[in-house]
Amino acid sequence: METKLENMEPRKIILDCDPGHDDAIAILLAANNPAIDLLGVTVVAGNQTLDKTLVNALNVCQYLGLDVPVYKGCGLPMIREQLIAPSIHGESGLDGPHFDALTKQPEVQHAVNYIVDTLMASDGDITMVTTGPTTNLAMAMRLNPDIVPKIREIVLMGGTYQLGNMSPAAEFNILADGDAAHVVFSAGRKLTMVGLDVTRKVLCLPSIVERMGQIDNRAAKLFVDLMTFFNKTQKEVFGWDGGPLHDPVTIGFLLDPTLLTLRECFTQIDIRSEQSYGRTNCDIFNIMKRPPNSAVAMDIDVAKFWDLIEAGIRAYG
Amino acid sequence: METKLENMEPRKIILDCDPGHDDAIAILLAANNPAIDLLGVTVVAGNQTLDKTLVNALNVCQYLGLDVPVYKGCGLPMIREQLIAPSIHGESGLDGPHFDALTKQPEVQHAVNYIVDTLMASDGDITMVTTGPTTNLAMAMRLNPDIVPKIREIVLMGGTYQLGNMSPAAEFNILADGDAAHVVFSAGRKLTMVGLDVTRKVLCLPSIVERMGQIDNRAAKLFVDLMTFFNKTQKEVFGWDGGPLHDPVTIGFLLDPTLLTLRECFTQIDIRSEQSYGRTNCDIFNIMKRPPNSAVAMDIDVAKFWDLIEAGIRAYG
Amino acid sequence: METKLENMEPRKIILDCDPGHDDAIAILLAANNPAIDLLGVTVVAGNQTLDKTLVNALNVCQYLGLDVPVYKGCGLPMIREQLIAPSIHGESGLDGPHFDALTKQPEVQHAVNYIVDTLMASDGDITMVTTGPTTNLAMAMRLNPDIVPKIREIVLMGGTYQLGNMSPAAEFNILADGDAAHVVFSAGRKLTMVGLDVTRKVLCLPSIVERMGQIDNRAAKLFVDLMTFFNKTQKEVFGWDGGPLHDPVTIGFLLDPTLLTLRECFTQIDIRSEQSYGRTNCDIFNIMKRPPNSAVAMDIDVAKFWDLIEAGIRAYG
Amino acid sequence: METKLENMEPRKIILDCDPGHDDAIAILLAANNPAIDLLGVTVVAGNQTLDKTLVNALNVCQYLGLDVPVYKGCGLPMIREQLIAPSIHGESGLDGPHFDALTKQPEVQHAVNYIVDTLMASDGDITMVTTGPTTNLAMAMRLNPDIVPKIREIVLMGGTYQLGNMSPAAEFNILADGDAAHVVFSAGRKLTMVGLDVTRKVLCLPSIVERMGQIDNRAAKLFVDLMTFFNKTQKEVFGWDGGPLHDPVTIGFLLDPTLLTLRECFTQIDIRSEQSYGRTNCDIFNIMKRPPNSAVAMDIDVAKFWDLIEAGIRAYG
Repeated sequence: METKLENMEPRKIILDCDPGHDDAIAILLAANNPAIDLLGVTVVAGNQTLDKTLVNALNVCQYLGLDVPVYKGCGLPMIREQLIAPSIHGESGLDGPHFDALTKQPEVQHAVNYIVDTLMASDGDITMVTTGPTTNLAMAMRLNPDIVPKIREIVLMGGTYQLGNMSPAAEFNILADGDAAHVVFSAGRKLTMVGLDVTRKVLCLPSIVERMGQIDNRAAKLFVDLMTFFNKTQKEVFGWDGGPLHDPVTIGFLLDPTLLTLRECFTQIDIRSEQSYGRTNCDIFNIMKRPPNSAVAMDIDVAKFWDLIEAGIRAYG
Repeated sequence: METKLENMEPRKIILDCDPGHDDAIAILLAANNPAIDLLGVTVVAGNQTLDKTLVNALNVCQYLGLDVPVYKGCGLPMIREQLIAPSIHGESGLDGPHFDALTKQPEVQHAVNYIVDTLMASDGDITMVTTGPTTNLAMAMRLNPDIVPKIREIVLMGGTYQLGNMSPAAEFNILADGDAAHVVFSAGRKLTMVGLDVTRKVLCLPSIVERMGQIDNRAAKLFVDLMTFFNKTQKEVFGWDGGPLHDPVTIGFLLDPTLLTLRECFTQIDIRSEQSYGRTNCDIFNIMKRPPNSAVAMDIDVAKFWDLIEAGIRAYG
Repeated sequence: METKLENMEPRKIILDCDPGHDDAIAILLAANNPAIDLLGVTVVAGNQTLDKTLVNALNVCQYLGLDVPVYKGCGLPMIREQLIAPSIHGESGLDGPHFDALTKQPEVQHAVNYIVDTLMASDGDITMVTTGPTTNLAMAMRLNPDIVPKIREIVLMGGTYQLGNMSPAAEFNILADGDAAHVVFSAGRKLTMVGLDVTRKVLCLPSIVERMGQIDNRAAKLFVDLMTFFNKTQKEVFGWDGGPLHDPVTIGFLLDPTLLTLRECFTQIDIRSEQSYGRTNCDIFNIMKRPPNSAVAMDIDVAKFWDLIEAGIRAYG
Repeated sequence: METKLENMEPRKIILDCDPGHDDAIAILLAANNPAIDLLGVTVVAGNQTLDKTLVNALNVCQYLGLDVPVYKGCGLPMIREQLIAPSIHGESGLDGPHFDALTKQPEVQHAVNYIVDTLMASDGDITMVTTGPTTNLAMAMRLNPDIVPKIREIVLMGGTYQLGNMSPAAEFNILADGDAAHVVFSAGRKLTMVGLDVTRKVLCLPSIVERMGQIDNRAAKLFVDLMTFFNKTQKEVFGWDGGPLHDPVTIGFLLDPTLLTLRECFTQIDIRSEQSYGRTNCDIFNIMKRPPNSAVAMDIDVAKFWDLIEAGIRAYG
């Protein structure tokens, strides 16, 4: 086992997010694990406006004592008007926990330029993880298309081949910038779509909150404070006892690929419809006979997921 | 019980269909049950071209000795180019059984005019059941909008709130004439949508074919001959051991409303997208806060369904 | 010349319209000319609701003493919600003239069935002229596609390759039922599109109203009463001194084909856009290299048009 | 006059272009006029791929001895697949002239970052002139929305309210990146749309080429070499004797605003249609009653335009 640890290179990732309760847990899980080398956190508007999601990302890092650079990205979707989700994440976008006065500063460089420069300087070994609208990544791809072959792979939380959560057709991250999602899905890089089809199965029920609450560290406290608020709005909006912990599934999958059952298929984003804008049309049955451009998550090992979350929290000592 | 039978009026229906293997079973089930008064069978292009679906409807009626009038309807979708499904239903649209020379004749009147005249002359007690593209019904609604309040209710096989079967977004009956579906869904009448979400659960597995094959009558023989072919193509196209017996679920639901679990919600058809054309965007979570226009089938009692099928076959003596 | 008159068969037409001030002039022009055999007038909703356009058509015929059968057609567009134009044609759809109590009755048969039956019984020598939304003709084509090869040609008022008049993209007749227009344009029959590009050049200026007003017959009186109101609303809505006399250009073209300069080209209707719904995308420059399906009116001999109108009015004795 | 010259601040502009024959003339006209302070030339893919349009821009500057910095921008449209126009501008995108070996180098900074930084550092006195797809400007607006209020005004060549030139609905610059055009048109800054409606009136007929050819300087030679090739392809593609000199109209308008007749109106870009994608739906008749977001060029003083061109060429001594 020692040999394995020595040989295993940590997975280099850039985490692009819009915290957001579940984004915060994704940061928590990614930033303190020897298997992952979190190069930077890039922030985008999504669950809330950019000024708020940026503060939230900084707050989470400061609260957990993380020494990761945070970059401010795009405040608007590429083309469409802005869509945010205050009914889910509250006015701050991260209602629930109390944070001390913020001293951690964002980097000066724009997140999109950071993504471009970091990928161009890399050996092609960086994985892009997105847990918000994919505006930053798509903007980077269009600013400099040469980054595309430099991306090792993309793991994104977003989409659904079943029912949407912000429109009947579409999931929030894709709906909020379907055009950017189209750019990312059609870029030609390996892409894993972690959609509602699996994230809806990891409901953070009261028993889960209780389980994590029995751990005695700051990460556990953050988890409990976040999830207590999150579950309240999920109850109000969808009538569920526990909200789906969407975003950390991406990190969980990187930590243990057996977490998800995947299906390779062709997926296209509907960006030319008003009604179905942002739908991820996953050709699960291969009706269209087109080459796959995505690996779509079909199922998740729920118990394994919560074990990963628990281990991630416990790692904070 | 006698009192009940005396009091219970049989449900008057017009069955609009495009036989098609599962349409044939729907005719079989509807035409010989005291609880249903099958006023007429109207035929539309769909699983195959109109000349073929008409012959198939006539063949099924003749084979089963049914004395129901059959009307020829529309041969093209209202707006879009024609779409048929020979890979599922074969070249004839009803491959499998052997039929004797056809002597039964269609009525002279056009199906659309028949629907208009019959509804206008009615007391508002006729249920429209559609198991193909809804072209005939929508054309009737547009030819004479006064029929709309005369319809008791609409029960249609079509749509899905999950994955389509003829495109990633859409189910065949809706995809083949999404514009007509839009007319029907937005008409303002009570409408039950029996979609793939439930019909995919009633897979006509070999054990089912065997069970029905043990009944000794013409209906059983028709069932077995049809399903043997149908299962072959379902295996080839989707890789399934037994094909979903879509259309008869509509009739089963009329015979026993407890067959289905329904959810009232607002459903709209995407007719202005190229990619998601024909998607039934069912607002199951009431995200849009619009008044419901549909009762969408969410679940089905599979055992009860096969019992209804068996009883329906046995009724042929 | 006598020989010519003897030999010249009058052109058989069905006039499908939604009166409407300019439709009324089209009826006036078509119904009393030896070169035209007006078989029937079919009425559709458009400038106003069907109950009103039907009454208007009957009123015009009664006022002018015309013995032409009038058929009630479709009251709703094929797919979209209804659009009418009271700001142009007033509350009645034909504001301006005073009509006596109406005694003329519409025929019993539905206009769509009349079109189907008449075309099917014909030798392929009937020209379809539409001056409203093309709902009736498209419905007939879909009710019985066998009528298509029976149509000699289609001459329609509608569309524009420049600016629309009811949306920036679209002309009223096409906007009001773009889906029907798509059916008609893609049917594969010879089709002449008389669009705003030419009809906007025949402005019924006060000098024209005065010129026709000097004729002393009922037709002239009707013309003056109609145009006085029509010009008032055109002034209010578009700021023009005289409104374009759209619909009669179709009849004028049949009377004298040199009236219009035509360009054969491929035209498609945008029916899958929300913003440009109903646009007639005429490929005047043959960019798409597709076979022509339309002859689009590019220019009009304005003086000749008013001469035709004057002759048409004078023919009423 | 001296007083006037002293007082008149030259207009600061950034010229964003995709040379292209008419772009080259726009550079020629803008770079050597005391009334204009050309801060930088930013280059985008459009008439040809980015590698070619960049070389073309550098070649034009080097050939004319211009000391203006040139920045490389976006090589792909924001969302859609790339569209270029080799049939109009040849394989190089600037076929015709012979250029010496290129020594002029592009700046290191990305054009989009240059636009962002320059606008942010400005006093709000910079005019953005675009003569290609508006990708660079729209990307800058989305990378940092704070630049929007810093833009003095936008003058763009693109669009049409009549017929398109690359599709029946759309003009090339808008069609090539309709999404970017949507971003720019909806940004809320003063915007002048110089579309085909006026640029098609400034046909560079042989007489014009001859007139400019009588001037004896490098600029005249460049003009003649460019236009000789340009007219050849215009003849082949559209059948015209002289091609429309689209792009320099923007600069001409800045030099003399009386060049154009403008109409303030609401314009929206159709980005959700497949067929009419990129159409500039200009609400010239104010049908939609929405506040104007554009001043659309309705007419042009053709003689004045050629005088401006001649003066611009003569200014090269």
